[in-house]
Amino acid sequence: MLEQEWLFYLKKFLIENESVIKSKDEDCAIIKINKNKYLLITTDALVEGVHFDLGYTSFWDLGVKTASVNLSDISACGGEPKWALLTIGSPYPITKKFADEFMKALVKTLEKYGAVLVGGDTVKSSSLFFNLTLIGETRNPVLRSTAREGDLIFVSRPLGESSAFLRLIKNKAEEIPENLKKAHLQPEPEVELGLLLSKERIATAMIDISDGFALDLWRLCQASQKGAEIYQDKIPIGKDATLEDALFGGEDYALLFTVSEKDIKKLEKIFQILNRTLYFVGKILEEKKIYLVKDSNRKELKPRGFDHFVEISFK
Amino acid sequence: MLEQEWLFYLKKFLIENESVIKSKDEDCAIIKINKNKYLLITTDALVEGVHFDLGYTSFWDLGVKTASVNLSDISACGGEPKWALLTIGSPYPITKKFADEFMKALVKTLEKYGAVLVGGDTVKSSSLFFNLTLIGETRNPVLRSTAREGDLIFVSRPLGESSAFLRLIKNKAEEIPENLKKAHLQPEPEVELGLLLSKERIATAMIDISDGFALDLWRLCQASQKGAEIYQDKIPIGKDATLEDALFGGEDYALLFTVSEKDIKKLEKIFQILNRTLYFVGKILEEKKIYLVKDSNRKELKPRGFDHFVEISFK
Repeated sequence: MLEQEWLFYLKKFLIENESVIKSKDEDCAIIKINKNKYLLITTDALVEGVHFDLGYTSFWDLGVKTASVNLSDISACGGEPKWALLTIGSPYPITKKFADEFMKALVKTLEKYGAVLVGGDTVKSSSLFFNLTLIGETRNPVLRSTAREGDLIFVSRPLGESSAFLRLIKNKAEEIPENLKKAHLQPEPEVELGLLLSKERIATAMIDISDGFALDLWRLCQASQKGAEIYQDKIPIGKDATLEDALFGGEDYALLFTVSEKDIKKLEKIFQILNRTLYFVGKILEEKKIYLVKDSNRKELKPRGFDHFVEISFK
Repeated sequence: MLEQEWLFYLKKFLIENESVIKSKDEDCAIIKINKNKYLLITTDALVEGVHFDLGYTSFWDLGVKTASVNLSDISACGGEPKWALLTIGSPYPITKKFADEFMKALVKTLEKYGAVLVGGDTVKSSSLFFNLTLIGETRNPVLRSTAREGDLIFVSRPLGESSAFLRLIKNKAEEIPENLKKAHLQPEPEVELGLLLSKERIATAMIDISDGFALDLWRLCQASQKGAEIYQDKIPIGKDATLEDALFGGEDYALLFTVSEKDIKKLEKIFQILNRTLYFVGKILEEKKIYLVKDSNRKELKPRGFDHFVEISFK
């Protein structure tokens, strides 16, 4: 099975019940532990040769990224990151230099967003990998599946820089702008924003953009049983990135969220307080299709799959 | 750094605070979430070629074992297993046959002990690995660090069968008894017993035997700043296993626990109700050494390290 098939297949074994509010089609598993407290649980692995390349990634970068990709999942559900557990698989005994860089970056990044490392395991493995499990809490989990017709769609920041970095690496570019390196190697999770949107009960649905705007928007629409209309000229394209990068590149870790028209004033106020720019990009439709609109042109925007087992060929 | 050094090093980065009761030297991280509820969190990875060999391990076995090793950690802290997340790393697209066997065994084993799978991730990796994170709950976490002088030491069942299996495999034995296969390939976690010992507040300290009786007893004594006297003739040796297997073999997943002398009657009653045999093996000492006593002989019992990076040589 390929990754998408496998994830689909895996769902058969995931349970939802009175306390397990969501185990499928969300960035985190959502567990109700009492009247107004929910646990958010997420796990993400970074594997050498698949998710990172030590040719251009430092151990410090790896520590930041291992934390960030998981923090981003918690942010997408509107949670406060709390406790993390780390598993390191390595083909060789770990040196102090590696460990220091990686661990300091990991712990610093977790702590920046209020989380602490509470456990870990280390195993021998023929690939170097890092698997972090992160647990958060929230009073108001924000789901992917609750967007409504007419809701406005926003993204939290310009897109495509992370994937522009990979494109330049692939093309053996001689120089790569610092902002692209930063975007790909040390992405910033939107914890503060996700938490505010949850606290103010303002986002009707939310997801983090990990596999590209088009694919993650498609996921949000699928889960909500809705469609969308995206205005091409509104898509915020990161510096040194292209529209292609912004639409289909992955690993942005920006938030994609929907807000009811009646709450737009409140939303604008939040962004003013945060001193941040708000990027409106489109609207939720009842029809279950996604359209990209440019002037009087309207064409269907199809997600392109992101699949490790397709992207990399095997012997 | 070798595994033991690495685990020691890792502790520097683990936080304990008002809500994180324990993050170090325990089978689980222990988090206080309200006045009388604690979360127990554990994570364990099984890696091909290190923890299992597909030559003699079926995918069904792997599913059972991936669940069991984590369930055993929850049992050691006296918890009720609740929610699990799975990461699978695989060098090849996963086939339906593999997935079915593995997943059914995993989910069935979790459910047997009251836990459900609530999320997962799948990644490409040059080794096949399974990383499960399991979260449990308890009202009374049982620690390793709270054994007291004079407490009696017990193990929950005969030891050494799992490691006898590996010894026979290594020696290319023609036939391997079923009980040894079962012990190694489909170990049973002691969830019911751990939970009862916690509920009845009867165990002063507890650990599961994952790396061998001698090493795990040493860990419990270290954490409690105590020593112990073990009576060699009392050690319950599994069928087809040797004393060596029982003392130093790993992966028994039996519970090793201590009980105050005044509670022995209560303990015996619990074992009667469970219709199980109670194995008394020794006594906690104030002196921080571990002795093995046989007739009038008394010699120090030194733990032998279990280290993946030592056991397997690298190019």
